[in-house]
Amino acid sequence: MAASTSPSVSPASVIRADADRELAAFCADHRAALLEIGEELGPAMDALEAMLAGGKRLRPTFCYWGWRGAGGAAGDGRIVRAAAALEFLQACALVHDDVIDNSDTRRGLPATHKRLAKLHADHGWSGDSEGFGRGAAILIGDLCLAWSDEMYQASGFGQDTLALGRRPFDAMRTEVMAGQYLDTLEQVRGTGTREAALRVMRYKSAKYTIERPLHLGAALAGRLPELEAVYTAYGLPLGVAFQLRDDVLGVFGDPTTTGKPAGDDLREGKRTLVVAETLARAGEADGARFSALLGAPGLSVESVEWMCGLIESSGALAACEELVERYAGEALAALESPELDASAREPLRALVAAATRRTH
Amino acid sequence: MAASTSPSVSPASVIRADADRELAAFCADHRAALLEIGEELGPAMDALEAMLAGGKRLRPTFCYWGWRGAGGAAGDGRIVRAAAALEFLQACALVHDDVIDNSDTRRGLPATHKRLAKLHADHGWSGDSEGFGRGAAILIGDLCLAWSDEMYQASGFGQDTLALGRRPFDAMRTEVMAGQYLDTLEQVRGTGTREAALRVMRYKSAKYTIERPLHLGAALAGRLPELEAVYTAYGLPLGVAFQLRDDVLGVFGDPTTTGKPAGDDLREGKRTLVVAETLARAGEADGARFSALLGAPGLSVESVEWMCGLIESSGALAACEELVERYAGEALAALESPELDASAREPLRALVAAATRRTH
Repeated sequence: MAASTSPSVSPASVIRADADRELAAFCADHRAALLEIGEELGPAMDALEAMLAGGKRLRPTFCYWGWRGAGGAAGDGRIVRAAAALEFLQACALVHDDVIDNSDTRRGLPATHKRLAKLHADHGWSGDSEGFGRGAAILIGDLCLAWSDEMYQASGFGQDTLALGRRPFDAMRTEVMAGQYLDTLEQVRGTGTREAALRVMRYKSAKYTIERPLHLGAALAGRLPELEAVYTAYGLPLGVAFQLRDDVLGVFGDPTTTGKPAGDDLREGKRTLVVAETLARAGEADGARFSALLGAPGLSVESVEWMCGLIESSGALAACEELVERYAGEALAALESPELDASAREPLRALVAAATRRTH
Repeated sequence: MAASTSPSVSPASVIRADADRELAAFCADHRAALLEIGEELGPAMDALEAMLAGGKRLRPTFCYWGWRGAGGAAGDGRIVRAAAALEFLQACALVHDDVIDNSDTRRGLPATHKRLAKLHADHGWSGDSEGFGRGAAILIGDLCLAWSDEMYQASGFGQDTLALGRRPFDAMRTEVMAGQYLDTLEQVRGTGTREAALRVMRYKSAKYTIERPLHLGAALAGRLPELEAVYTAYGLPLGVAFQLRDDVLGVFGDPTTTGKPAGDDLREGKRTLVVAETLARAGEADGARFSALLGAPGLSVESVEWMCGLIESSGALAACEELVERYAGEALAALESPELDASAREPLRALVAAATRRTH
């Protein structure tokens, strides 16, 4: 048992404990600063830290291995802090995303805006608890976004090294917000094409989660020019494969391992590549019925089962699984580059397996 | 006519045109980057630029005079760009604030979330137009926040100089978000004390609009240690006086010059110092009636008139006007410091008059 799961967690665990410790230290300092302004800021800081506590630390992990692959030294506290700063950006994205999607939960816990709405209700304050919760969550997300570059700048790298990292760091922020906007837009436009789904995956997932963190690590090691193309060739297909695995799990995942009800993405009406593939392959009548059911309020278990059946019978599921394999293969091939430091090759390989073969 | 208004606008106009040009150049670059991701991002960028186009450029102005007062050279493009970057932070604050307060308009134009809701409705997209507008506005505000430090870092100052400016720059962001949170909290808690109102003014207005921009200017000129106390002694009282003038205008301002209906702040239920002073001075019965009417839906013209009458007859209005004068005097006195470069003394004096004697 242990042997079969260890390859999927070890590259992450190298940085996870260190990153968590740096985030905790940063938060302790900033909690003190907030409490000096007003002790009523305590619950907002609690909510921020609760959001920060979860997660797989994917972006710090790829940033760290991007550094190592560019010849950066193991166990350097500066790269740990710079990489951990990306978790604040991710916390902002999640907190704001949950407001935008009006989601009730995140990783099995109440979403930040729900948590703050409960604070309002518990105190019997005046006005609308939901409105207060949304407003507070917007501000908490803003704090996370501001603190992301504050922590990056304070990572301990020299100013000229930090300046080298700004291009991937800045691009990452613009791209994830642009990707989120396009995702929101595709939900309401219902374009439903493969191209539209792939574009959202490229910016919201592939570049944001994998390619840009790798670029940042390479830039901080002073070797972005040599490794930019290698990391793009690895990061973009792996990022799309990672998101595609997420999308398949969002429909067919086991609720006991994913923590989400079966068919959750179908109930939410997400316009994923799985959906686009199904619509492209199904007959006209089935496609129309599928579209009408997607995201419909109060979708029955029978309807979800019919939709899952169509995803399989149309060949969409097999096509997506094939794509995951193909993209994983492309990512692995990119690791053959002689520019890559040998120490990072095995961990980056293990991350391909972890991202594409996981069950949650 | 011209002679009486020129002192109030000239310190701002020194930087305004230059700052606008730098913001336009930054936006042109970033529009191109967004359109490369997807041409559908055009309307989001239009909304962002529309929000950026308005405003008095107060923070860049104080940042610029903070630089000049610390001996920084006139006409240096680097300080113009660093100062203009603060407008992106302000744009984020306004866009998110309008979502939080569910405001329909900003400076007489539709608020950003309303503008995006209309885009949704005009295209007949599926789902809730208001929800789409809110979500899009959250992302547009996030872009502004990220671009604020991107523009700051790209201002052209050396990396070590930029690092000197990070302390005020970072503090400013944390403080304004904390202040906004406390403001939101005071609205629903209805504490209603002078202390509560003053604390919000201190963080949301005084430090954010005046003190920290001055500190940033001094830091970029390499003279923050010498000028920090001077700028605090000038900025904090002036900032509170500025906000207090705003609050008086929000109740008694002429709708034709403020662009807001008479008694607008009373209809919105804002917990300002004007309100706190009134509650502290009015008798029990009048105070209770005032509190009950504050922010009540469908407040009648007669009720607003009665409330305005109580603000005057209780002595609250006179107390607030006296406070504005006292704080303006404190700010002026701080300018006598020999640490301050003489070139900035007259413009910083004129800014006291402009901030406290304005009619809109």
